[in-house]
Amino acid sequence: MLSAMSADASQQASNLPTTADLLSAQERLEPHLLPTPVICNPRLDEVAGAELWIKAENLQHIGAFKARGALNTVAQLPAQTAAKGLVTYSSGNHAQAVAWVAKRFALKATIFMPTNAPSVKVAAVRRMGAEVVMVGTTSLERQSAALDFAGKTGAFIIEPFDHAHTIAGQGTAALELQQEVASRCGAALDEVFVPIGGGGLAAGACLAFAGSQTEVIGVEPEGCNSMQQSLAAGHVVSVEPGPTLADGLRPTRVGELNLAICKQHLREVLTVNDDELGLSLVRLLLWAKILVEPSGAAALAAALRSARKGARVGVILSGGNMAASTLVELLGKHAAAVEA
Amino acid sequence: MLSAMSADASQQASNLPTTADLLSAQERLEPHLLPTPVICNPRLDEVAGAELWIKAENLQHIGAFKARGALNTVAQLPAQTAAKGLVTYSSGNHAQAVAWVAKRFALKATIFMPTNAPSVKVAAVRRMGAEVVMVGTTSLERQSAALDFAGKTGAFIIEPFDHAHTIAGQGTAALELQQEVASRCGAALDEVFVPIGGGGLAAGACLAFAGSQTEVIGVEPEGCNSMQQSLAAGHVVSVEPGPTLADGLRPTRVGELNLAICKQHLREVLTVNDDELGLSLVRLLLWAKILVEPSGAAALAAALRSARKGARVGVILSGGNMAASTLVELLGKHAAAVEA
Repeated sequence: MLSAMSADASQQASNLPTTADLLSAQERLEPHLLPTPVICNPRLDEVAGAELWIKAENLQHIGAFKARGALNTVAQLPAQTAAKGLVTYSSGNHAQAVAWVAKRFALKATIFMPTNAPSVKVAAVRRMGAEVVMVGTTSLERQSAALDFAGKTGAFIIEPFDHAHTIAGQGTAALELQQEVASRCGAALDEVFVPIGGGGLAAGACLAFAGSQTEVIGVEPEGCNSMQQSLAAGHVVSVEPGPTLADGLRPTRVGELNLAICKQHLREVLTVNDDELGLSLVRLLLWAKILVEPSGAAALAAALRSARKGARVGVILSGGNMAASTLVELLGKHAAAVEA
Repeated sequence: MLSAMSADASQQASNLPTTADLLSAQERLEPHLLPTPVICNPRLDEVAGAELWIKAENLQHIGAFKARGALNTVAQLPAQTAAKGLVTYSSGNHAQAVAWVAKRFALKATIFMPTNAPSVKVAAVRRMGAEVVMVGTTSLERQSAALDFAGKTGAFIIEPFDHAHTIAGQGTAALELQQEVASRCGAALDEVFVPIGGGGLAAGACLAFAGSQTEVIGVEPEGCNSMQQSLAAGHVVSVEPGPTLADGLRPTRVGELNLAICKQHLREVLTVNDDELGLSLVRLLLWAKILVEPSGAAALAAALRSARKGARVGVILSGGNMAASTLVELLGKHAAAVEA
């Protein structure tokens, strides 16, 4: 009841994106995005005991769905705001997404990255023409430097997950999955598995499937379960992220908006461990011929283990940017079992 | 002039498939096939100096375009012929394709494979329910055993490449590429690169692009250039295939029908070496996130080196079935250069 809401909750509710926002985001993004395939594979189905429909966002621009949220945010900026440039803080795919969008719209972008960021990731951002500033090693140091920079220059901060435009943008991946399954098999998904880092994609998927028969299940790495803990507590809980192969899914805390949406629509959050991530990554590569990064395998890992038997199940592969050395290591560990 | 044709040539001409056969094959196959994506990647474009449109048939059923030709052949068999079962001889993707089609149409299939066939490939065929008979180590021994078996049982031989239905089926991959490029960028390709083993896909691509502005370029591994030699000689020339990473592109000789079509429509044949194959495979994996087998990288390797600068260029990736150990080896050799 509106009258019973706190000022904060009411303020937050007015910022929450809606399913209508996803539909307009889809129209806005369509000319800029790559049409990523929805993959079916009998061997994966056999392991899952279910019919999997796998949305391959690792084949999106910059190798990850993150291109969507950044694009949806920037495309709605007033020209005079955009002209002052973009800024963000990230060591991962969001950094590449902002650099890519900036290049696409001919804007200046400044990315604050940790001093220990892998050189491959720094090079990828620089290759797209963004300026990289290396600062500290913690997320807090980067964020504070970015805020400072924004204050001084007027550059616009592109939020990685806790923003209505980001959520609506990421949700378009789920919307496309829903539409393609409907058009190819004339039916709806029973459930869909999505990975959770800050919660942008999960919140977007919740909105995409809201009001449908499709249940949305979030997936976090073991020891990095801020969403699971936040849902249990009823408010955002910070975690000290444990070690995980899924380096894209270990923020300290999920977003406020993301939690608010997941509270309403998410069925549950499951966790996966490194062995499940590595094995799923190798199965996908050798059986379905596509490469995901460990974070990108999280939803698949959970679906292979926990999909409802016989159900029609969606899976979103979030990204595919990883070091070859990690891939070689995982092949060494899991390929024999997968090829047997 | 018809009157000047030999009886053989006239007989052959009447067996040649036409572009109309491709169009009806497309209609026939569509309900059975996976919609494989056409991929664009800025880093590959940068290396090529051209705009590449890459048809990913490694994401087709059984991980290769070979599903198309086998399906197109079987779908046109009279019921009483099909009921006697299918037979073929192959150590590669064609074996899996026939096993897959047999399973799909609930037919019996017998596949003659060499005694030294990799156990992964034998297992893949058996997993789909086909009977595998191991015989000798040469293509001639397998072919003769299969012919013998067909004579005794009435089983129908599914030709790997030298048959009108096979060619029309494989050509649908090129047709889809043409249609998707037209729909996404409103223009035709300037040239398209296709790999050549026996020549089924190349002949099909010739028919798909016949009468258009798109020039078709065939690609063979160095030392396995039966098509290149046959075009120069004007008749099918057998070669003793040299060593190559591209195990799917080393038949002793291309097909008669395939040569007849390529003679009319192919612009030229280029060759690629193992270093180019391995480097292209690793670039595609780390940049575009999809896995091809070395044969599957042949057309890309040639396009990266020899595409016309600034042109709109199609590339067909033929398949993605390979041993993890080979992949690890190629990553060890090429990943550092690709990640630099």
